Amino acid sequence: MILQKEIILPAHSRGFHLITQTVLAKMELPEVGLFHLFIKHTSAGLTINENADPSVRVDFEEVFNRRIMPEHEPYLTHTMEGADDMPAHIKSTLVGSSVTIPITNGRLNLGTWQGIYLCEFRDFGGSRKLVATVYS
Amino acid sequence: MILQKEIILPAHSRGFHLITQTVLAKMELPEVGLFHLFIKHTSAGLTINENADPSVRVDFEEVFNRRIMPEHEPYLTHTMEGADDMPAHIKSTLVGSSVTIPITNGRLNLGTWQGIYLCEFRDFGGSRKLVATVYS
Amino acid sequence: MILQKEIILPAHSRGFHLITQTVLAKMELPEVGLFHLFIKHTSAGLTINENADPSVRVDFEEVFNRRIMPEHEPYLTHTMEGADDMPAHIKSTLVGSSVTIPITNGRLNLGTWQGIYLCEFRDFGGSRKLVATVYS
Repeated sequence: MILQKEIILPAHSRGFHLITQTVLAKMELPEVGLFHLFIKHTSAGLTINENADPSVRVDFEEVFNRRIMPEHEPYLTHTMEGADDMPAHIKSTLVGSSVTIPITNGRLNLGTWQGIYLCEFRDFGGSRKLVATVYS
Repeated sequence: MILQKEIILPAHSRGFHLITQTVLAKMELPEVGLFHLFIKHTSAGLTINENADPSVRVDFEEVFNRRIMPEHEPYLTHTMEGADDMPAHIKSTLVGSSVTIPITNGRLNLGTWQGIYLCEFRDFGGSRKLVATVYS
Repeated sequence: MILQKEIILPAHSRGFHLITQTVLAKMELPEVGLFHLFIKHTSAGLTINENADPSVRVDFEEVFNRRIMPEHEPYLTHTMEGADDMPAHIKSTLVGSSVTIPITNGRLNLGTWQGIYLCEFRDFGGSRKLVATVYS
């Protein structure tokens, strides 16, 4: 059986945001299955990481901007949509556009410290569309 | 229901290439489901990113070679297959070996600006084998 | 049909480890389907890469520590769990928490040189929990 639902997230500030509860509030989960969450954008991403200490999400934003893909690199040519745009595309590919999570006993079978992150890589990305698909 | 098909891509030059139409031309999609595309190689990858301005794909190639994983790093030991080989393995893991995309109303439910990229990380990677699996 | 199994891996040393056979030994595969493997931790990851020459896995460890995400970066704030902790979170998001692989003719349809890696990013990560889900 397949259940599918579009989820619209309101605008989030640039950075990494926990969205596990927001997403789960919109879904009914079967006993066993797989949960697939997809983001329909190329300058934002989805990943799974630590759900407790907010300093992890702050450090993520620092590392992605300083170390992984800084803005204003002189060799970039796709610059017309702003200095944050091309780096956002690169980061989006590095973290990925979707996460797939097992469903067990009617719940997402995440580890104790795992949560779903919205990775917003634009300065003003606006609202973001997700598609959730549940297989059972 | 499961449909599975092997897709053989002809040799592509080193770089990032849009393959959405090539892949879709070989598939029939159900009304609702999930589309999984897998690449059977460790020096190429698949990702989803911007499908419009070709400068994005040019910048991807520059960023991956200059910033993410340059060739000729002195500490690399796996060098017998050429300077492009070990960096290709690293890049392949960073972008990933597969993409999973929701199918809605008989079509891939991609965002307006999303397309599927073949990421060819070898100088002469040759033809590449993909496996497409459709769940409905 | 869905089959799901929890797999507990014993502690592995920091680095990249082939676990294809360990995982397959615990599973029965259908003729056709998809295999999803998920790791329930935020400081380790799963990826698919070269299964032959061990120097590839040695170089992976070097590249991830020297080039992708070194320890002791001065701007990191999440440092209370050790210098290896925050870099482990970053690396885990870059490689990903799961792999999805087609099943064809009763076997994982991997390329000749592909294997599944456990990426252990902590100095002493201990035992790790995986969840395998098979769809057919």
